Parts: sequence; C-alpha cells; structure tokens
Amino acid sequence: MEINTPTLIIDEAKTRSNIQGMAEKAKRNHLKFRPHFKTHQSRQIGEWFKDAGVQSITVSSLGMAEYFAQVGWQEITVAFPCNILQIDLINDLASKTRLILLVDNKEVVHKLRDQLVHEVEVFIEVDTGTNRTGVLWNNQELIKSIADAILDGKHTRLKGFYSHSGISYSSKGVSEILQVYEDSISRIAQLKSWVSTHYGDLEFCYGDTPTCSFVHDFKHVDAISPGNFAFYDIMQEQIGSCGFQQVAVAMACPVVSIKHERQEVCIYGGAIHFSKDFIMEDDHKVFGKLVVFDGNKWSEPLKDCYIKSLSQEHGLVHLNNEVLKEMKIGDILYFLPVHSCLTAECMRQYVTLTGETLDHY
Amino acid sequence: MEINTPTLIIDEAKTRSNIQGMAEKAKRNHLKFRPHFKTHQSRQIGEWFKDAGVQSITVSSLGMAEYFAQVGWQEITVAFPCNILQIDLINDLASKTRLILLVDNKEVVHKLRDQLVHEVEVFIEVDTGTNRTGVLWNNQELIKSIADAILDGKHTRLKGFYSHSGISYSSKGVSEILQVYEDSISRIAQLKSWVSTHYGDLEFCYGDTPTCSFVHDFKHVDAISPGNFAFYDIMQEQIGSCGFQQVAVAMACPVVSIKHERQEVCIYGGAIHFSKDFIMEDDHKVFGKLVVFDGNKWSEPLKDCYIKSLSQEHGLVHLNNEVLKEMKIGDILYFLPVHSCLTAECMRQYVTLTGETLDHY
Repeated sequence: MEINTPTLIIDEAKTRSNIQGMAEKAKRNHLKFRPHFKTHQSRQIGEWFKDAGVQSITVSSLGMAEYFAQVGWQEITVAFPCNILQIDLINDLASKTRLILLVDNKEVVHKLRDQLVHEVEVFIEVDTGTNRTGVLWNNQELIKSIADAILDGKHTRLKGFYSHSGISYSSKGVSEILQVYEDSISRIAQLKSWVSTHYGDLEFCYGDTPTCSFVHDFKHVDAISPGNFAFYDIMQEQIGSCGFQQVAVAMACPVVSIKHERQEVCIYGGAIHFSKDFIMEDDHKVFGKLVVFDGNKWSEPLKDCYIKSLSQEHGLVHLNNEVLKEMKIGDILYFLPVHSCLTAECMRQYVTLTGETLDHY
Repeated sequence: MEINTPTLIIDEAKTRSNIQGMAEKAKRNHLKFRPHFKTHQSRQIGEWFKDAGVQSITVSSLGMAEYFAQVGWQEITVAFPCNILQIDLINDLASKTRLILLVDNKEVVHKLRDQLVHEVEVFIEVDTGTNRTGVLWNNQELIKSIADAILDGKHTRLKGFYSHSGISYSSKGVSEILQVYEDSISRIAQLKSWVSTHYGDLEFCYGDTPTCSFVHDFKHVDAISPGNFAFYDIMQEQIGSCGFQQVAVAMACPVVSIKHERQEVCIYGGAIHFSKDFIMEDDHKVFGKLVVFDGNKWSEPLKDCYIKSLSQEHGLVHLNNEVLKEMKIGDILYFLPVHSCLTAECMRQYVTLTGETLDHY
C-alpha cells in the first residue's frame, strides 16, 4: 500500500471483532441489534455486520438510509427527528424498505398522516436526560398525544420508543457510565410500565457506545443501537468504553516539516481530515495519538506523542525526543483519531490493510 | 429555491464585492494579488476572481492545484510545505502550469533536485512568529543553505519568501491585529534587507485575512495571499476583520424539533455540515448565528439567537422568546457560519441566491 496523502486505514479484523462482540452481547441479552451505521457509512463495512447476523440498521439521515437501501438493507431506522421537508424521499424509501422514523412532536405526525402514501413505523424519541431531542420521559401527556396521533394515521404504525443517552459521552470511567445507564434505564422502566398499560407491548430501543460497551446485563430494553463501537477512538478510550487495542481505524499522514527546536513535526493532515474534535489531557488539547504501524497492525499510542493543533491542512505533532530524532521528511506517521465518526466523515473513504478501498456515503 | 436539507447559500454580489475590494487594495499598494482559494475551492467562484483581474492563485494542496489547473489557471502557488511524496503530481502540474512550491527545509529541496523533471519556482516559507511551519525569519544560516540548494537545482528557481501570520487569528480588534502586522512586517523587513544583499530582488508574499483586511498601507511586501476575506465569517467579525454585512455565505437548515421549555430548537445541521469550530461569547460557545433571509439578502444576526451545540447531524439553537414563539417544524433557519472555510469544506457545494449550484473541489 503506497500512501502519499492523508489516508484513513481500517483494520478489518479489529472492526469485525468489535462488531461480533456487540452482536453477541445483544444476543445474550435477547436484544434486537440495530447498529448505528452513521459511524462507518460504508456499504462494504455494512456487509461485515451482515456476516455477524445483523438484519436491521440505524442511520442518521434519510440520505444515508437511501444509500443503504440501494445496497439491499430492508429494515432501516432513521434515528434523527423526522425531517418532514423530505417527504418525497420518505415515501420513496417507504415503498422499498421497512422504514422506521423518529418523532418527538405531534406536528410532524400530523404532516406524516397527510402526506404519507406508504406505510412507515414510528418510534417516539424519548429524552431520558440528554436534553437534545425527544420528549421528556415523564411527559405522559405529550407522549400520549403523539402515540395517539401515530395510531390514528393511515400509514403510520407505532413501533415503540427510542432513546439515546448521549450524556454518557461526557462521562469518565466505569462508575460514571454505569450511573448514566442506571438513571436512563430507571426512567425507561417508568415509561415502559405506563406505556404497557395503555398501549401494550412496544419496543424500547436504547443505546450509545459507552453504555452498550460497559453494561453486560440489560434491563427494560428490547433493542440497542450503538454505532461508534465498530471503530472506537481515543475519546471512547478516555471515556472508558474501550482499550486502545480495540481502535480499528488510524490516519496515515506524511511528515512535511520538522521543528527540532519546538519538539514538533508538521504533518499533511489537518482539520479537513481529522475534524476538530479533541480531548483534554494534562491541560493540553489532543487531536490524535501517534502509534507505530508495521504494515499489519498498529501499536498502542507512544508516550508523549500527539497532535497538538490542527489548521485546515496542517497538523502539528508534539513528539518525545526519542521519536523526534528518528523523523525524516516524507515519513508516514499513523494516528488514532479522537472521534472516528467525524474523521470518517471528513475522509469519505477507507483503505484496508490489504490496500482495498472502501466507500463512504 | 426549494431547501429541504442543510444547504450552503452564497451571495454572489457580496462575494464579488469582497473580492473586488481586496483586489483594489492590492492594486493601490502595487502588490501582486495571489488570493488563497482554499476558502471557496470552487471553479465557478474562481471565475469571479478572474473578473476582478486575478491571474495568479494560491491553494493549500497539490490536489487543489490540479483541480484549478484543469480549469485553466496558469500560475498556482501551493502554500503548504512541499509534500515530496506527491512528486509525480508535482511533475505533472509543473509540465502544465507555472507551479510555485513552498519549502522550509533543505531535505525537500534536495529531493526536488533529484526528482523534478520540469521547472518549478520555490518560495522559502518564513515563520515571523506563528510557530507552525517555515524557517524562523532570523535563522539566516538555514535560509541561506535552503536558498543555495534551490539555486543549485536544475529545475528549481528561487522565487522569494512566503509568510502567513496565522497568529492574527487569535487577535481581537484593530490594535492587536495591527500589532501582529507591525511585528511580522518588521521581521520581514530585516530579512528582506539581508536577502537583497545576498540574492538580489526577490518576491516577499505575505498575508492572512485579518491583517490584509485592516492594513491599508503595506510596507516591505510585494504580494498578498489572503483567502477567507472572500466569504468572511463570524470568527472574522469577532476578530474585527469585517462587519457582519460582509459575510457572504449562510447555512440554511430545517427545524426538526422545538423545545419551548429550554428555549431551543433542533435543526437538521450538525458538525458534518458546519464543522466544529466555535467562538466564545459571554462564556458560552457559538457555532453559528441566526439571521433572517428574505430570499434576496440576509439580515445581521438576531440578538441572543445562536447555535449552542453541534453533534454529528443535530444542531441545538438557542433563541430569544420573540423568535422562539414564531417557530414551526419544517421552517428553514439561516445561520452565518463560524469558520466559512471549514463549513464550505464540509458542504462541498454552494447554492446561489438564484438557485444555481456551484462546485467545490
């Protein structure tokens, strides 16, 4: 594999292992597995999920749903508040696949009722504490009015309730993540108890990578839909969701300038390749961590070697002296990304360890 | 123009006015104008520069140089430390256009000497205080050895010196920007005096949007290469480089969820559309500012209405009560972006006020 520009490398074996592990966890817990494909957005990586028994997927936009429908996925949840302005695409998708939408308000359900010509299933999105979208878990009045509007629609079927505990992303370590899970799940349990008396047995889908990575014994939910776990990244390692050895993608970037006096090198690899997400460590920003790659696998991050800043195409890499003294212009350096979803979105393709190129929506 | 997904709108008249203003400033100062195309990266917008008399452009990657060479640009500076691993593309471009490269080390000049088969011109990149790339302005020994190596190469011609005062991006207001300019220009003046006695009359190219926007009487430089000024953005407004009325691009995003209790709406428009750059205001982050768009022009930002957080596809918008009470699901909101270069890079196309689509490399 010849690399001469910023390249996103994917370790297929690690990715498959991450997928297999989560699929088995779902199976052990008798949960429907609806993995979120927004992380990889790749038809070929989708096949690796299929190999692990996955039949139903989650995406974050109707456009992404269309991309995966075109390659044969038959059950697709769009885990984003229904954008009614795309009703034509919704109807088109609904005519071809089992399409599942999310709603958190009555207005959109009424518009779906008026404008749908094909059947869709609908999750009511529930906010169990994330404060992003979704109806608050204890707002029974609003939940009831939305549920009734869905049941009232000719082409809308009430699927159940969907909740994403995005707040776990600001957690650090096992105990904090488990606390987020316990808080969310107790709210879901309250809602579920109320729902079952009014609407019978409906699906409760839950999931974010930190809690799904940590929790081994799921309660009160019927399905999970984590996404990032397929690749993981150093943000997830810092949260505590994974070890570095599970991170399945790495960025390869050429060295273009060496600054011994500042203990830095500049790589061809900037904000447009990595994205601007960072983690804090010892009061400095980290935009990526240096690993050693031997052509078959990469190491854990090297001590005190990290991307300290990114501009549009430049990355400034702080190095320890031992690594610095070996640097040559034209070397390729490898980095674990901070947020693999956004790095993949920037790069829009992958190269496998055997040199094959994989698509990104 | 029917908008139903996140869309980057461009005001052609404003963009042309920004371009024209900078072109005239360069002309008044007898400066060569080498505008940086990394902001817009669009062949059609490139034509607007041509209309303003521009003949020589700057880009941030060899790939971008190829894109613009293919549509006829004949003099292209790649303002990024020469990535020698792309020597085949360098030779290809050098065979077709007047290609100008940047170097800040001898190693790459030696490799160019060995591997070039067509002539290129070379700027030595000079660091006047930014601490990113470039040779420190007062490191005469290194500058001399690089200059001599360039002069020694069969296919390398010494063009001059290139400096980007990126440090102006952390400035606030006129006096700080002018101080950055004065510091940089005095260092350039020192270098120029030394260079002229050793190498004769060479070009000194300088430029970043804040200083080029503020300074009216340029000293000691022969050329400028700002980029962001074509669009500007709210980061530049905060720095003091422009007024809001000069910001020439806006993001259009559908409203998908309304949270009256939190005084927020959620838009379809997230990190993959805006990028994650933000400014701080009153101790909170701002990822975009709401404007009103009447189909022909947008207003200045509305008071207390801004994007407070972005996840992959969600944007959470804080609104004042007056604006909030008018919100409906399916409305389109318009935002000035924080960093137009990165937003354009995310969106990869523009729509003009008349509905025409413009390409992005």
